[in-house]
Amino acid sequence: MLSESVSKDLEAASPIREMFEKGGRLIQKYGADKVADLTLGNPNEEPPSEFKKSIIRLMGNGHKGQHRYMSNSGYTRTKEAVASHLNRAGYFNGILPEHIVMTCGASGGLNIALKSILNPGEEVMTIKPYFPEYRFYIKNFCGRQVPVEAGNNFTIDADDVEKAITGKTRAIILNSPNNPTGAVYSRKNLEGIVGMLSEKEKHLGREIYIVSDEPYREMIYESEFTSPASLHKNSFMVYSWSKSLGVPGERIGYVAVNPGMKHLNDIIEGLVFSIRTLGFVNAPAMMQNVIPDVIDSEVDKRPYAQMRDKLNKTLNENGYTFTEPKGAFYFWVKCPTNRDDVNPDHLSAEKRFIEHANEKLLLVVPGSSFGEPGWFRLAYVDPKNVDLGCIKLQEIAKRYGNNKVI
Amino acid sequence: MLSESVSKDLEAASPIREMFEKGGRLIQKYGADKVADLTLGNPNEEPPSEFKKSIIRLMGNGHKGQHRYMSNSGYTRTKEAVASHLNRAGYFNGILPEHIVMTCGASGGLNIALKSILNPGEEVMTIKPYFPEYRFYIKNFCGRQVPVEAGNNFTIDADDVEKAITGKTRAIILNSPNNPTGAVYSRKNLEGIVGMLSEKEKHLGREIYIVSDEPYREMIYESEFTSPASLHKNSFMVYSWSKSLGVPGERIGYVAVNPGMKHLNDIIEGLVFSIRTLGFVNAPAMMQNVIPDVIDSEVDKRPYAQMRDKLNKTLNENGYTFTEPKGAFYFWVKCPTNRDDVNPDHLSAEKRFIEHANEKLLLVVPGSSFGEPGWFRLAYVDPKNVDLGCIKLQEIAKRYGNNKVI
Repeated sequence: MLSESVSKDLEAASPIREMFEKGGRLIQKYGADKVADLTLGNPNEEPPSEFKKSIIRLMGNGHKGQHRYMSNSGYTRTKEAVASHLNRAGYFNGILPEHIVMTCGASGGLNIALKSILNPGEEVMTIKPYFPEYRFYIKNFCGRQVPVEAGNNFTIDADDVEKAITGKTRAIILNSPNNPTGAVYSRKNLEGIVGMLSEKEKHLGREIYIVSDEPYREMIYESEFTSPASLHKNSFMVYSWSKSLGVPGERIGYVAVNPGMKHLNDIIEGLVFSIRTLGFVNAPAMMQNVIPDVIDSEVDKRPYAQMRDKLNKTLNENGYTFTEPKGAFYFWVKCPTNRDDVNPDHLSAEKRFIEHANEKLLLVVPGSSFGEPGWFRLAYVDPKNVDLGCIKLQEIAKRYGNNKVI
Repeated sequence: MLSESVSKDLEAASPIREMFEKGGRLIQKYGADKVADLTLGNPNEEPPSEFKKSIIRLMGNGHKGQHRYMSNSGYTRTKEAVASHLNRAGYFNGILPEHIVMTCGASGGLNIALKSILNPGEEVMTIKPYFPEYRFYIKNFCGRQVPVEAGNNFTIDADDVEKAITGKTRAIILNSPNNPTGAVYSRKNLEGIVGMLSEKEKHLGREIYIVSDEPYREMIYESEFTSPASLHKNSFMVYSWSKSLGVPGERIGYVAVNPGMKHLNDIIEGLVFSIRTLGFVNAPAMMQNVIPDVIDSEVDKRPYAQMRDKLNKTLNENGYTFTEPKGAFYFWVKCPTNRDDVNPDHLSAEKRFIEHANEKLLLVVPGSSFGEPGWFRLAYVDPKNVDLGCIKLQEIAKRYGNNKVI
């Protein structure tokens, strides 16, 4: 018998799963080339050539013991490469290899960070719309998720965050560039938040951690990236090479702890204990061996920029409501409603749009998945799907009377 | 601030950690070649040549998308290779790829199995002495560990297991070949346990799962391996290639669900949900791609057999009390006591022996780590350490008056 908790979570997720399954059936029925699948953020770009070269070099160097256990926190030379990269990039002032724990991607990093700090019943704030998995990561450690409304253009609203803070608040997860909105938080916006958090920490006499989820940090277009983790001392920087190297299947990332963190050594010990006892044990050895060779490499971002421009134009010309994404590879779009919908209910609007999309063989992720019904997310990772998707978005728009172009 | 749970666990583990740190200091002070380190089960043998060849082949085959996300349960062709291997080996009757979830090693597999089935407060039995991490894996899901005494020669005692079963029992973790005892459970022993469990399941009206932890399955000397997971329908087979391929740093293994399990599909769905939401997401892609090429390969076991024979002889000749291991790469040895110790206290005997061992620059793991004070574990993975260790074990034995040879 399934555990009650897993059983309930599966049941709650079943309407969304049903939609995905429906998509799968559409692909089966009509063929993958007829369906525009804009659901998954699975990078289509191949890793930079240095990645493959590094693996071939490792296989030829004759070094023994490359696949053995190492310290739970990872190889020293890998952590040295990461620390030096972070210092060069100006994220921290003098971060050391011992402040870094190599992880199985960002999702592994988020889980060990949350395990290290959360007591049962303590609260973790997330900005709406939020990456759906945060809910489960927080629940793993009996924490309580507290969703906070985003500000204008999907910025962070300091007042709203402040209002959500209680004596049980332990952390806020920030994700910039953001999945699903594509927002990139400005330094000014973040400084406001951090100033407020520091005040609150003093007032409440407890740390309020920023858990900064940054796998999209390099997927940025014309704006500038500021890491929330570098501004607030009590911060975890959670990183993954999934997007920057295009290797999400390999599960390689890290948690870097801001060297100014209170109880720094205890917390690092907690991260190491958590990676061990949650069953990760350590980040995959071969990927750790590759990282020093590729730490300054990135996938080619031009195809992403081109796809973004194309979708931007199509959505604009067809009257969709959205904010132009500054980073990541998603558009967050309002489900269109008809002019005669006086009191459009978000969930019904979403359901109707998803139905229309499916009829036209367009697959997107409904906003409900992100805690925000009435919206949908488009992922742009594959030019063929994006081209087809643009045609379909245009066709679907014609069914709605309130769209600008009609 | 560390979470209370992690903080308490770290504190409880601190005497053992202290001992490890002391060992590290000894190595630093006297040099690694002077210290016989028999603590860690970190395989010293290099992977079979097929492993490296497979990686080089993958890097040269020109296939795109090798490092992308796949289904959370893993690549179909990898699961096909595993299913076919399991059927050929006779473990299951007609297991299918969809009954398999590829995992980040056995520790990842144990965690997703336990998350899928455990409700808070439910009990999981482990046979003493037990692998120390089981305690934390069970605790991750608010389960309660119920240690059960082993039978003669570290077999499983059906009566003792039966007595430990309550209305809250959810599972028993079995580990054969066993870490730390080296015991390999006989088919007859296991059939007795499974018969009793099935009766109890009927009587209590609930499944009692066997979670069979089998990473040492190929590390076996003159006895025969029977998988507990193939005998009991409600079983999870948890496997890792860490030992058989000598790649523990790469984190690759699987959970195979006995196809006769009750609620089979729900449970598999639970495993997939758990690997996703615990933050593993999927087993590392490259290792999954390698597995079909190496599924019938194994490390060279002759060096292990030689080390075992050497230690066996030394321990015997010097009057240590132990049971000859039939598998894995550990000896489980009683801490010697003096003839004039009338009422030897297990913990003091252990502390004194560890002190004597450290004085002679021999590092071993104290039995307390495995829930059984008064014993110690030797790992034989490196011939140089074993040779040196044998000399030191002989020297230390001289300090104890009750040893046969003195």
